[in-house]
Amino acid sequence: MPEDKSTEDQSAKTTGYSDRSYRLKRFCRRRFKIHGFARLLFRWKASVYKLLWREMIVFLGFYGVVSILYRFALKGTTKSNFEKLAFYAYDYTKVFPISFVLGFYVTVVFDRWWTQFKAIPWPDRCVYNIAAHVLGNDEEARIIRRTLVRYLNLSAIMIFRAGSKRVKKRFPTLTHIVEAGILTEEEKNILKDLPSTHPKYWVPCVWFVNLIRMTRKQGRIVSDPAMKTIVDELNNFRDKCDELYGFDWIIVPLVYTQVVTIATYSYFVACLLGRQYLDPEMKFEGHTIDLFFPGFTLLEFVFYVGWLKVAENLMNPFGEDDDDFDMNFIVDRNLQVSFLTVDDLYEMSLPIVRDQHFDITVPDIPYTNAAIKNKSKPWQGSASK
Amino acid sequence: MPEDKSTEDQSAKTTGYSDRSYRLKRFCRRRFKIHGFARLLFRWKASVYKLLWREMIVFLGFYGVVSILYRFALKGTTKSNFEKLAFYAYDYTKVFPISFVLGFYVTVVFDRWWTQFKAIPWPDRCVYNIAAHVLGNDEEARIIRRTLVRYLNLSAIMIFRAGSKRVKKRFPTLTHIVEAGILTEEEKNILKDLPSTHPKYWVPCVWFVNLIRMTRKQGRIVSDPAMKTIVDELNNFRDKCDELYGFDWIIVPLVYTQVVTIATYSYFVACLLGRQYLDPEMKFEGHTIDLFFPGFTLLEFVFYVGWLKVAENLMNPFGEDDDDFDMNFIVDRNLQVSFLTVDDLYEMSLPIVRDQHFDITVPDIPYTNAAIKNKSKPWQGSASK
Amino acid sequence: MPEDKSTEDQSAKTTGYSDRSYRLKRFCRRRFKIHGFARLLFRWKASVYKLLWREMIVFLGFYGVVSILYRFALKGTTKSNFEKLAFYAYDYTKVFPISFVLGFYVTVVFDRWWTQFKAIPWPDRCVYNIAAHVLGNDEEARIIRRTLVRYLNLSAIMIFRAGSKRVKKRFPTLTHIVEAGILTEEEKNILKDLPSTHPKYWVPCVWFVNLIRMTRKQGRIVSDPAMKTIVDELNNFRDKCDELYGFDWIIVPLVYTQVVTIATYSYFVACLLGRQYLDPEMKFEGHTIDLFFPGFTLLEFVFYVGWLKVAENLMNPFGEDDDDFDMNFIVDRNLQVSFLTVDDLYEMSLPIVRDQHFDITVPDIPYTNAAIKNKSKPWQGSASK
Amino acid sequence: MPEDKSTEDQSAKTTGYSDRSYRLKRFCRRRFKIHGFARLLFRWKASVYKLLWREMIVFLGFYGVVSILYRFALKGTTKSNFEKLAFYAYDYTKVFPISFVLGFYVTVVFDRWWTQFKAIPWPDRCVYNIAAHVLGNDEEARIIRRTLVRYLNLSAIMIFRAGSKRVKKRFPTLTHIVEAGILTEEEKNILKDLPSTHPKYWVPCVWFVNLIRMTRKQGRIVSDPAMKTIVDELNNFRDKCDELYGFDWIIVPLVYTQVVTIATYSYFVACLLGRQYLDPEMKFEGHTIDLFFPGFTLLEFVFYVGWLKVAENLMNPFGEDDDDFDMNFIVDRNLQVSFLTVDDLYEMSLPIVRDQHFDITVPDIPYTNAAIKNKSKPWQGSASK
Amino acid sequence: MPEDKSTEDQSAKTTGYSDRSYRLKRFCRRRFKIHGFARLLFRWKASVYKLLWREMIVFLGFYGVVSILYRFALKGTTKSNFEKLAFYAYDYTKVFPISFVLGFYVTVVFDRWWTQFKAIPWPDRCVYNIAAHVLGNDEEARIIRRTLVRYLNLSAIMIFRAGSKRVKKRFPTLTHIVEAGILTEEEKNILKDLPSTHPKYWVPCVWFVNLIRMTRKQGRIVSDPAMKTIVDELNNFRDKCDELYGFDWIIVPLVYTQVVTIATYSYFVACLLGRQYLDPEMKFEGHTIDLFFPGFTLLEFVFYVGWLKVAENLMNPFGEDDDDFDMNFIVDRNLQVSFLTVDDLYEMSLPIVRDQHFDITVPDIPYTNAAIKNKSKPWQGSASK
Repeated sequence: MPEDKSTEDQSAKTTGYSDRSYRLKRFCRRRFKIHGFARLLFRWKASVYKLLWREMIVFLGFYGVVSILYRFALKGTTKSNFEKLAFYAYDYTKVFPISFVLGFYVTVVFDRWWTQFKAIPWPDRCVYNIAAHVLGNDEEARIIRRTLVRYLNLSAIMIFRAGSKRVKKRFPTLTHIVEAGILTEEEKNILKDLPSTHPKYWVPCVWFVNLIRMTRKQGRIVSDPAMKTIVDELNNFRDKCDELYGFDWIIVPLVYTQVVTIATYSYFVACLLGRQYLDPEMKFEGHTIDLFFPGFTLLEFVFYVGWLKVAENLMNPFGEDDDDFDMNFIVDRNLQVSFLTVDDLYEMSLPIVRDQHFDITVPDIPYTNAAIKNKSKPWQGSASK
Repeated sequence: MPEDKSTEDQSAKTTGYSDRSYRLKRFCRRRFKIHGFARLLFRWKASVYKLLWREMIVFLGFYGVVSILYRFALKGTTKSNFEKLAFYAYDYTKVFPISFVLGFYVTVVFDRWWTQFKAIPWPDRCVYNIAAHVLGNDEEARIIRRTLVRYLNLSAIMIFRAGSKRVKKRFPTLTHIVEAGILTEEEKNILKDLPSTHPKYWVPCVWFVNLIRMTRKQGRIVSDPAMKTIVDELNNFRDKCDELYGFDWIIVPLVYTQVVTIATYSYFVACLLGRQYLDPEMKFEGHTIDLFFPGFTLLEFVFYVGWLKVAENLMNPFGEDDDDFDMNFIVDRNLQVSFLTVDDLYEMSLPIVRDQHFDITVPDIPYTNAAIKNKSKPWQGSASK
Repeated sequence: MPEDKSTEDQSAKTTGYSDRSYRLKRFCRRRFKIHGFARLLFRWKASVYKLLWREMIVFLGFYGVVSILYRFALKGTTKSNFEKLAFYAYDYTKVFPISFVLGFYVTVVFDRWWTQFKAIPWPDRCVYNIAAHVLGNDEEARIIRRTLVRYLNLSAIMIFRAGSKRVKKRFPTLTHIVEAGILTEEEKNILKDLPSTHPKYWVPCVWFVNLIRMTRKQGRIVSDPAMKTIVDELNNFRDKCDELYGFDWIIVPLVYTQVVTIATYSYFVACLLGRQYLDPEMKFEGHTIDLFFPGFTLLEFVFYVGWLKVAENLMNPFGEDDDDFDMNFIVDRNLQVSFLTVDDLYEMSLPIVRDQHFDITVPDIPYTNAAIKNKSKPWQGSASK
Repeated sequence: MPEDKSTEDQSAKTTGYSDRSYRLKRFCRRRFKIHGFARLLFRWKASVYKLLWREMIVFLGFYGVVSILYRFALKGTTKSNFEKLAFYAYDYTKVFPISFVLGFYVTVVFDRWWTQFKAIPWPDRCVYNIAAHVLGNDEEARIIRRTLVRYLNLSAIMIFRAGSKRVKKRFPTLTHIVEAGILTEEEKNILKDLPSTHPKYWVPCVWFVNLIRMTRKQGRIVSDPAMKTIVDELNNFRDKCDELYGFDWIIVPLVYTQVVTIATYSYFVACLLGRQYLDPEMKFEGHTIDLFFPGFTLLEFVFYVGWLKVAENLMNPFGEDDDDFDMNFIVDRNLQVSFLTVDDLYEMSLPIVRDQHFDITVPDIPYTNAAIKNKSKPWQGSASK
Repeated sequence: MPEDKSTEDQSAKTTGYSDRSYRLKRFCRRRFKIHGFARLLFRWKASVYKLLWREMIVFLGFYGVVSILYRFALKGTTKSNFEKLAFYAYDYTKVFPISFVLGFYVTVVFDRWWTQFKAIPWPDRCVYNIAAHVLGNDEEARIIRRTLVRYLNLSAIMIFRAGSKRVKKRFPTLTHIVEAGILTEEEKNILKDLPSTHPKYWVPCVWFVNLIRMTRKQGRIVSDPAMKTIVDELNNFRDKCDELYGFDWIIVPLVYTQVVTIATYSYFVACLLGRQYLDPEMKFEGHTIDLFFPGFTLLEFVFYVGWLKVAENLMNPFGEDDDDFDMNFIVDRNLQVSFLTVDDLYEMSLPIVRDQHFDITVPDIPYTNAAIKNKSKPWQGSASK
């Protein structure tokens, strides 16, 4: 069946590690059967190393400078004072519970991050209702349907431009949207002339309502429940735009972010002193060995600052980082899907034929050999004997 | 394309750090590539420093007084007793798990804060339904539509006045609302004469229903589903008002707040004693150095009291702090958007024209050079090969 | 504008500290600018002190008895054994992580508490639909509308009586509800004669449906969508009643509560021994000072037992504690609002007049001087330059 | 008013401690005013003691055996080695953070438990819609309404049988359901003959749809919105059944449960060694006293294993434990309420009369003396002066 | 009643431990009455041992190598240095709070896991609406209904293929779906020819809308609300597909996973050194005994790495692990249920007969003896006396 390879195998070289992890897992399952997450440690893109290598160099640099000062520059009382300071700083690092504050903070930011993903407006519900209820095969009907979905996508692009750097770069001005064919020159002028000081992403939604009202009057929308449902779905769509606007406007209070950052940074400033290898000959408790390189401290750094980076990354998911949502892809996808749905696919008629199982009460859907071995019996309930 | 600068570049000097952080990030990415959150440490507005500088001074003041007493005033047994007391207090600070209680408490308050933001009533859904279903271009139709949205906004302003100091200051009496043109003199008198002891923000919603009922009878609303949907959306709007009322009425139990505050404050009272630098000559364990200034303790103070401040700030988000929701802005925005939607934009008719991609099945939406480099291929699913 | 003082300034002497905290905050902002939460420490009503003073006295009493025994009664080996026991108990107090279990438990109970508040049935949605869809100005129409809302409120009162002590005290028998005019004698008899062993709060909802069906047949409800929407809202209302019933019936499992209580109490039993001031002359580690009064331990007691009290308070929010929801107030409010909405306000007709901004596209809503200083520019989105 | 005692005072001797706690609280408030939760410690039913006494005996038994071995059997080096082992085990118990894993795990299971309660299908919404929209007083109408609600209850019972031991015991075979009058012999045969390998609880829902379709054709359901709403509510009902099926099928992954159980159990295995009282004469640190009975360790056992028991109890809430949901009660209640609603109460007609407050705008609802003292003024909003 | 054994007792040998746990519990209740969770420790399928045995062997192997090196290869200073290193590593293990990060991380992943289960599209709501509203008993009606549900299932299978390895293995190409009778050859060609670069699972939904529109025009769907409701439910179904696509596309940020994995792994690397049994003759603190086998450390390993495995398992629940959702089962079940509902069961007519309790107001539903002992009285509310 190589003929639908073309449909199946496009891409798959995109973001997301679960894909590669799959291949690795499969490979490992067969050969060594080792740990799946372990493999993720060797990824670079969107990785903690890529995010942290600069900070790690800075930290090691400072650590090295302090270390060299202690080893070569300090003498006598100064050296002794440094050692006392190191112990003092070390005590401090034990007192500070940054794991708590990071745990709670990251959980809060993570929830917000996913809620933001769910707040992205997809026009599909509206589009399907237009396909179902705005009838007609003549050119005007086509224009109306295309214009309705154009307004939806325009509204989405305008709110994306407000919050996402990527979309802003793609459409830096309204003229770019005109050039992309999503806004007409005349509509642009109306938008510009509207004497409102607020963002105007909602205006195309009003145009949508006006056009729907006209279409109902023309009778292309034949029923009142259809009219109601289209307006409801438009409102749901617009609510999502407002929700994105709200997320962009009301951010996690600065105080919280500052508190977490101060906690993490001051911890590692204390570590610069407190985690130095002190002269083993002084016989200080816990300082019996001098390894020069602060291996475990660096791991701690990767761990804590990495955790903070998780929060930083998730804080603005509409940016240009590796893990951020690709809003331009969403723009493209939505335009493609919505025009196809209301226009090209609208007119396509499929023959109404009997399906293969037409005379079978309970058809048996085949399994491939690869799939059959995981087949399980239907679950009948835990209380069945 | 400088001609739509005017539309694009108004403002951006508003609250919210993500904006400035963006610019800093971009700058840093290009030059030094250092930590984004780190930059936030140097903001003043809505910052932990601005919120805490008074408390910090008080704490340092007390610390200094105790320190001076210990160093200069106390002698012999008294001094020794003080040292014992300091150790006792120090032991106590280690026992007390304020990070837990703060973590749980702040999480609870944070959730509540965001739920309150989502409870703010926006009239948009109702307004769009009015635009879609209350028909007519004559003056009476205009008046009806304007009156309907006026009632909505009036109801919102009345509930905002109950819970938000800012809106209360803007409209200290009903007469101020009359002057603002949102309430007529006659309506004010009816409100005042209504013999109800409860807040009356719901009364304009009843007027709304009465007017809708009349409009349906007149036939300006032509269908029953339209009637139903407008009443439903009014109810959703009013539910939000009630939700705000509920949040204002039922607050986080005082006990919880007191417990958290007592924990935090008593911790730092203990620190005043327990974190003093004791005479290094006494050879007390952990007291080998005398730094005079309690640097790390101050950081701890910033951290814990700052965390408490987060809770305090989020507790009443309708106040006048830097981070609080700007309800007057919401009042202005809602009035502007709702009048524009049901009146000026209602009457505007756009030509129905073919769009640019009318004959293309899958149009290609252009990218700018700045945006193209982040373009990714469509995601085909993790199970694709 | 003193003339609407009467509308504005009634009350404000009610529960809820956010109100007083406001005044205090404002005062403090102007004078000393100190901590808002700090002020809450000096409240008595619904405070941790009011809740805990008995327990504190008991704890201090026992502590004192043990202390006196140790100081005066015990000698030689017995004394020495007591000291060993004290150290043993002290070790135990360090092992026991009650802060975790309290944190998780209180979070669970807090969520449940707020969900219960949201489960309270408010008749408003139903009432507005009755006002919108049950037409007629004759006496029978009035009677029907009043009867419908009466049934709703009756249903709510019956479920409140099942779960709330306050409402039960107000309406100890059905006869009290008859006297209050919410139930007729005849209806009471039907309720009593109904051979069901289950709580009967749902019966008035069935009467409601029967009456609605009759009203539809009479033509006072003119449309099918209206009929549908009223039944839907009745169902939503009744669902809330069922939800309250569920919360009353299925409580947090006793095991969980016992585990948390045992943990907290046994911690403080251990403290009675382990936190005694042992004779400083014995030179025990950490026992260099004898303060007689266990100040910090008492703070710990306030903290942990106070935290447990939070849970206890939130567990049954329909009781008679200071912080519990005032269900009788809700009963009064709902009756007042629903009768006003469907009856007196139903018949009131407001003149339809042009509003003040009728000819202005974007009206300018005035600010008072007090409010203007906080005015901010509209937020244009974080990605705007 | 003793005459409606019969309605009021049936039962109250049922599960649930909040009821008894009330009485105790009231008593204690009046006499000693002590702690409400404290009282719960003395309950046996559904208590931690009832759940744990066997485990406690086993644990104490093993502890005793080890203790006796150590005291009487071991000598010299063996004894010394045991002591070393005890210290090693003791160190281990300090390392192991079971409170975390228990906290997170129990929270997850608790959420799931309550979600499962909310997933229980109640037929009420459907039933009320049937009462509102399926018209007719003739026998066929009655039969249709009764058959519809019978199908609903049948579907619920079938899914309950799959997941709840109690219901399975009540209706071990379909024949038992036939005997209970909820299924006819003919329907049973159809169910049995249906060639599906999956649980068949959804089949009565299809019958419901078929019957509704027929009823609509007959004209007993007079409107299309009514038809739509009944099918929608049926779907909501069936969704709940599916949700229960999902909860029964997809359980918390075994790994998680094993990890938590291993952590808890291995902790107490370590305690068997590490918490032994070692010979005080050996002068080991922290082993200065020999109490024979491991009191605090037993409290720890009750606490940690009790916490695990909470999870175990909540994991399958449809079982036969004291705290599990009484599904048979739900079956009875639903049958009673749904038949009454669509049949006996359907036909009952109440006189439409003026209520007591007919001519009063804002009626005053009386308070009893017991209730008046808690009466509070209406809340006017925190921003009111 | 053995004759419906066939209906009752199929299967029950499937996944899910709650079933077996039941049997064990029952057995244990009767005999020894011991702990239910304890039993789960001895399961192999989907267990922590099955998941971890490789890692455990690797860990023990490394541990053994280090141990042997220390015991036999290292001498003098090298040995002494190793001991110092071991102490250093041991100190590190105490500093690292992996229990926090694992707790927060697993909670996040667990929530996501269950949300993904809830995001699985079940066609039932749509199917029931088709059965209720698409009328006709002729062949064309049957074909239309069958085609509609076929499109739904096709859409689901296409999105399952994108995210689930199991379904991908079952239907590696579109041709396999054709062979399974869910897609026709012609439809396959249309899918392949559609010039869209995005996954095409939504295309059958558009066909569905087109067919519904045609069916409405034919009059087989007789009402506008029916039309609306079918389109709404299609949209809900398609939304679920999109939600699955979103979960597959936007995964938990790699950084978070890496941070957690690094923390866990580096902890155990440190344990390889720090948890070695050092020579008891050196009299190091805490190293008084040499047990050779690191029993408790291995338990810790099982605990922490097992906890991480929970996260790994839950991360991609559509895979082929023991605990993953069996999507092929869902495919089979959905096809069976939906074809039965709209076709075979559609045509089946049941006689409308009086039920057994027709003349009884409150029927008494019998209990078996096994069930009666758990019967409880109806709950009357906690506030009843």
